[in-house]
Amino acid sequence: MTSPARPPAQFMVDEVSPSYWRVTFENGPVNLIDARSIEQLARLVSRIEESPALTVVVFDSANPEYFMAHWDLRADKARVAGMAPGPTGLHPYLDNLVRLSKVPAVTISAIRGRARGAGSEFVLATDIRFAGDKAILGHPEVGLGAVPGGGPMARLARLVGRGRAAEILLGADDIPAELAERYGYVNRVLPDGGLAGFVDVFARRIAGFDKAAVEGTKALLDWASLPPDEEFGPGLAAFFQTSGRPENAARVRYLFENGLQTPAGAELDLGRAVGEFASSLDTGPVWGPG
Amino acid sequence: MTSPARPPAQFMVDEVSPSYWRVTFENGPVNLIDARSIEQLARLVSRIEESPALTVVVFDSANPEYFMAHWDLRADKARVAGMAPGPTGLHPYLDNLVRLSKVPAVTISAIRGRARGAGSEFVLATDIRFAGDKAILGHPEVGLGAVPGGGPMARLARLVGRGRAAEILLGADDIPAELAERYGYVNRVLPDGGLAGFVDVFARRIAGFDKAAVEGTKALLDWASLPPDEEFGPGLAAFFQTSGRPENAARVRYLFENGLQTPAGAELDLGRAVGEFASSLDTGPVWGPG
Amino acid sequence: MTSPARPPAQFMVDEVSPSYWRVTFENGPVNLIDARSIEQLARLVSRIEESPALTVVVFDSANPEYFMAHWDLRADKARVAGMAPGPTGLHPYLDNLVRLSKVPAVTISAIRGRARGAGSEFVLATDIRFAGDKAILGHPEVGLGAVPGGGPMARLARLVGRGRAAEILLGADDIPAELAERYGYVNRVLPDGGLAGFVDVFARRIAGFDKAAVEGTKALLDWASLPPDEEFGPGLAAFFQTSGRPENAARVRYLFENGLQTPAGAELDLGRAVGEFASSLDTGPVWGPG
Repeated sequence: MTSPARPPAQFMVDEVSPSYWRVTFENGPVNLIDARSIEQLARLVSRIEESPALTVVVFDSANPEYFMAHWDLRADKARVAGMAPGPTGLHPYLDNLVRLSKVPAVTISAIRGRARGAGSEFVLATDIRFAGDKAILGHPEVGLGAVPGGGPMARLARLVGRGRAAEILLGADDIPAELAERYGYVNRVLPDGGLAGFVDVFARRIAGFDKAAVEGTKALLDWASLPPDEEFGPGLAAFFQTSGRPENAARVRYLFENGLQTPAGAELDLGRAVGEFASSLDTGPVWGPG
Repeated sequence: MTSPARPPAQFMVDEVSPSYWRVTFENGPVNLIDARSIEQLARLVSRIEESPALTVVVFDSANPEYFMAHWDLRADKARVAGMAPGPTGLHPYLDNLVRLSKVPAVTISAIRGRARGAGSEFVLATDIRFAGDKAILGHPEVGLGAVPGGGPMARLARLVGRGRAAEILLGADDIPAELAERYGYVNRVLPDGGLAGFVDVFARRIAGFDKAAVEGTKALLDWASLPPDEEFGPGLAAFFQTSGRPENAARVRYLFENGLQTPAGAELDLGRAVGEFASSLDTGPVWGPG
Repeated sequence: MTSPARPPAQFMVDEVSPSYWRVTFENGPVNLIDARSIEQLARLVSRIEESPALTVVVFDSANPEYFMAHWDLRADKARVAGMAPGPTGLHPYLDNLVRLSKVPAVTISAIRGRARGAGSEFVLATDIRFAGDKAILGHPEVGLGAVPGGGPMARLARLVGRGRAAEILLGADDIPAELAERYGYVNRVLPDGGLAGFVDVFARRIAGFDKAAVEGTKALLDWASLPPDEEFGPGLAAFFQTSGRPENAARVRYLFENGLQTPAGAELDLGRAVGEFASSLDTGPVWGPG
């Protein structure tokens, strides 16, 4: 009799030093986020909370094309909906993000490739976002018939302003790195090949600072700038109510037939693919001069 | 006996499809906003609220030079001040803007030409602002001796930050499209000739999305990002208290003598015209080196 | 018997006209802020509050390299901590900044040279920030082992968004003018030689406007955009708790040995100097490809 194989670690932690960790995400060919990601991230956030010397954590991806593609649309919805709440009392998907945003260390996303939907929600829950110039961010959920569940309405509106948040969330299109920087969705864009080095220098700098100064400053910044916890629950409830409805089955089927959740095809240009289906519906004559 | 002629429609609604309307504003040679605009907009907002399939509404102008010039300074102030409150309990001018910002469809301003004062307040109450590269936005009210009445203090501070909102509102100068984009006053600037086509493609995309997903997402975005209704009343009260005071009669006369509310003259470069009068007052010697 | 010499004025007020003042700061070779600055600024803010015709105040520096370097690290901490509260009930350092942000005149910082730490806190408490293209802003406090005390967590998060505020405050690096503009830390950047003229034209424009319109508009903008007073006290308390701890004595000594608080050396590139010390600590192997 053998014990079941332990699921592979999706978040690989490199303890560069006691004050500086680098965490690399890897889950399948496009880095999907699934129920196991939730469980593993919950443990990682607790480890970060409980490491008194830890001053800075960098998150990157093992896949240069996909930082985190998005939520796995084939995940067992009933199992996920039934997961036990985390320490904040929120569903563990939200609990992770809310707790991550408040850890006493500085968190930095080094974004290469695509970070859409839940991937965008993850980077929005970190303190600082640096992106390579080929990165793509976005929220395709509305284009798939669902309300985004992880709080981007709360976080993006405060970060980029209501108008640009409306464009990102309701337009459901890809936001290339350069536009993301212009909108304030990411802090800065670096050449793709220079991103890791830039972020490493920035992180080592902070790793050498006094932890009490970092922690005290971040706590006051959190107070000034984080959405109240109560804003997150209704978003996840709306996601569970709207996702997977039969009204949108044809949209999702169309995307899977065109490569969704595989490294090529629709997943590369998901914003365009979502729009192609929507625009194929009858919305009247095409606009023309006059 | 003939019935009185019905006043012409200022907001012309083109129902492109049940999910997509285009609304074109037209009122005289420079698209002034007046008491009739308030009455007609109130009915239009109600129609939008009551159209369950409607997913996206684009607002544009019949006049490429003037999206909406500003409030008609020759309007009967007593009549306007006495208008009955709207459903929110606010004066109908504010009620329109507050209700417009919360309709369950996505609203988009496609701004060609000038949108100043009440015109700026209108576009700030829509969700998304795309502008042609010749567009001009701004708030000349302070330069005319009045507090802006339609809530730009509440909306602009949240959109572009306190510093740039202060510059726009207290400097009372024209904000050309490129600067408006840099400040976040508008989402993006497009070449003037390409604006309508760009916005139409964007709107058709959203028109093809599931209404429940759009409505649910927008409701949470509204919660996260709209100013509380209570912030609007004091601004309109301050406008009624400050506008039309004899202290500023010479300013307003100067502008009317120079083409205010006509397609040419001061209306073209209102920011400059307002400043010329102000700078002609004695404020000491001109600055020089040393 | 001679009376003691009166300390020199650090804030020199040029009453250009009753509606327009220019205030020039000068305190030693790098324009440090110290206990006397607090006392003199308190009186200046009261004068501004009590001048009914005053519509606009421009703040600049007598030193083109240093707008205001930062807080004087050699100031007597016990004396400063023991200063009597100002009219808001806050410590006078905070009281000055909170009251300055609410004066009924428009306040403008014309920033040439460096404005770090307390210098940045000063310009963040004015309404509008215009900067020369050689200006440098930033918050080195965390890099010196202290929590910033004058409320930049509250103000920057609202101005530039949480992500960029985190980068500025926790990275503790210099923010050159161009990046400061891109982030919204300053309104606009002008060529260094043209800054004073640009600001003077802008200020004269406002000086010619009706004071009631300016004051009424600013009061509503303050309501919409200023942090609540309660957010400031905990930051100053954290500063007093964290600054001057023996854990960070070596950092501060290193900087003083390299020219801190003198016009040359570490003060020129303080962000780099702070990082050099931090990065010299052992934080593991240097990052490399792979």
